[in-house]
Amino acid sequence: MNTPISKSHIEKAHQLIASYIHRTPVLSSSSLNSKSGCTIYFKCENFQKAGAFKSRGASNALFHHLEEAFKLGVATHSSGNHAQALARVAAYAGVKAHIIMPDNSNPLKVAAVKEYGGLITFCKPTLQSREETLKEIITQTGAIEIHPYNNAHVIAGQATAARELLEKIPTPDIVIAPVGGGGLLSGTALACHYFSPDTKVFAAEPIQANDAWQSFKSKKFVPSINPDTIADGLRTSLGSTTFPIILEHVNEILTVSEQGIINAMKMIWLRMKIIVEPSSAVVLSAILEHPEYFKGKTIGAILSGGNADINKLPWNEH
Amino acid sequence: MNTPISKSHIEKAHQLIASYIHRTPVLSSSSLNSKSGCTIYFKCENFQKAGAFKSRGASNALFHHLEEAFKLGVATHSSGNHAQALARVAAYAGVKAHIIMPDNSNPLKVAAVKEYGGLITFCKPTLQSREETLKEIITQTGAIEIHPYNNAHVIAGQATAARELLEKIPTPDIVIAPVGGGGLLSGTALACHYFSPDTKVFAAEPIQANDAWQSFKSKKFVPSINPDTIADGLRTSLGSTTFPIILEHVNEILTVSEQGIINAMKMIWLRMKIIVEPSSAVVLSAILEHPEYFKGKTIGAILSGGNADINKLPWNEH
Repeated sequence: MNTPISKSHIEKAHQLIASYIHRTPVLSSSSLNSKSGCTIYFKCENFQKAGAFKSRGASNALFHHLEEAFKLGVATHSSGNHAQALARVAAYAGVKAHIIMPDNSNPLKVAAVKEYGGLITFCKPTLQSREETLKEIITQTGAIEIHPYNNAHVIAGQATAARELLEKIPTPDIVIAPVGGGGLLSGTALACHYFSPDTKVFAAEPIQANDAWQSFKSKKFVPSINPDTIADGLRTSLGSTTFPIILEHVNEILTVSEQGIINAMKMIWLRMKIIVEPSSAVVLSAILEHPEYFKGKTIGAILSGGNADINKLPWNEH
Repeated sequence: MNTPISKSHIEKAHQLIASYIHRTPVLSSSSLNSKSGCTIYFKCENFQKAGAFKSRGASNALFHHLEEAFKLGVATHSSGNHAQALARVAAYAGVKAHIIMPDNSNPLKVAAVKEYGGLITFCKPTLQSREETLKEIITQTGAIEIHPYNNAHVIAGQATAARELLEKIPTPDIVIAPVGGGGLLSGTALACHYFSPDTKVFAAEPIQANDAWQSFKSKKFVPSINPDTIADGLRTSLGSTTFPIILEHVNEILTVSEQGIINAMKMIWLRMKIIVEPSSAVVLSAILEHPEYFKGKTIGAILSGGNADINKLPWNEH
């Protein structure tokens, strides 16, 4: 689906999903501001339904196809948060959700999908295995595919997080979001483009999964091949819908180290008393590792999710 | 100091400290509501300045004595959160803060007091040693004692947390707070008495530190003698100012198990994505261990602080 996403597409998405999502708070921390030398407003999607921004896109896509979905079910592949989000909203709507998950997914996320009543099929942790397994399930069931990011309705849904942020903090100098498959980033970029055109859009990506950075710099799609990063939500490749939006509307992608992600995550836990997962912490990590872009500026930073495994904290590993 | 605390004392405290504290959010969780069978509004003092409600009382007491404090300094004994709170507001006001801490205090809390510039003297983890050491320091310096709970200004300050809760949720059936020395509980009880007289006031206490429960039931002061509980903020005895207020205005004290505290803490982390310390989790633990008091009711629950040691989580210990 290559339809460009309009301003009214985002506004309508926001109306459609309003009753199924949280309008999450925007928090700031004086100690993180003083540490970073800028003023950061964190959009807390870690408090979102099912623990991540993914509930926005999944809800918008599902309700766009509600009648068909009700008959045939929905299906997707996801390493975790989109899976939970789709399973949750599907259960809410009385729709069957077929979820393909890589067999190295975070056990907490697998358990949550099961709790929401999602029907899980495990696959190998490669894009090829995920896509093939999904295809099989769709052939068997006729379920409607709701791709985790390469889908205009999903992108329009994800855009509503930045839209809410801009309603509270109208013209930040920079908005920064993590980038994995690019659903959140392309939605964020479009929301800034339509609702605060002077705001620059930055992305943060683990240097050990820097396919988006490579794609962005070379302007040619570079796939993500089994990357090794703690930020488990950011291991996927860009999509054919998200990549062109990113090329057009994103100003810069900044890469961050694994240790930087862990430090930033710990800092957010300690200073803000909120739980974020590693994929969220990349935004603070980028601000701290690349201060030249941020000093003295007003920043909107999207904390994408809170589904961390609290039985296994990265700062306790040896 | 045995002055009773009036409604206007609490209102004035609220005005006096307004610029030095956060008006903390009130959060709820649909999954915890469905698990508990009641509607719980959590007053999130874990997001308070210095990580706990203690900033309210410490600020109110310090600003009541500002001129003297400026000359002679302030002094207190505290196992942690009051220490941090007093050190923080003292640094803000340019006042020296002498802090007596038991030598088994949470290392995170000791480090935070140092970071705020507090002057620490360690003592043995007994009430006697705390009081003797404090007396020595006061004799040496002339510093004004700001007791962590047995002080009318401190109690009036702590009362502002429940007052804010009642501004958002006007007439809950029950408000529940943890009880250690009774500063938060007596303040909470007075705030309910003045601002929502039909609301019942409950306290939650670890069964392994049940001195307040014993005192309440026998109507005679029972001291806390080296109790062994994970809820490190609740190891202290009631005071001569807090106990009579509790006897008069608290409806019930409920005790909870150590495992119940750990389970409740984990549940709050997982479901609400916020970090609370064990002393906060006792309120949810009481609701879950004593459902007969709470089913179907609207509850205000005060989450007292967020200074958990994230290097050492109780559910990871064997």
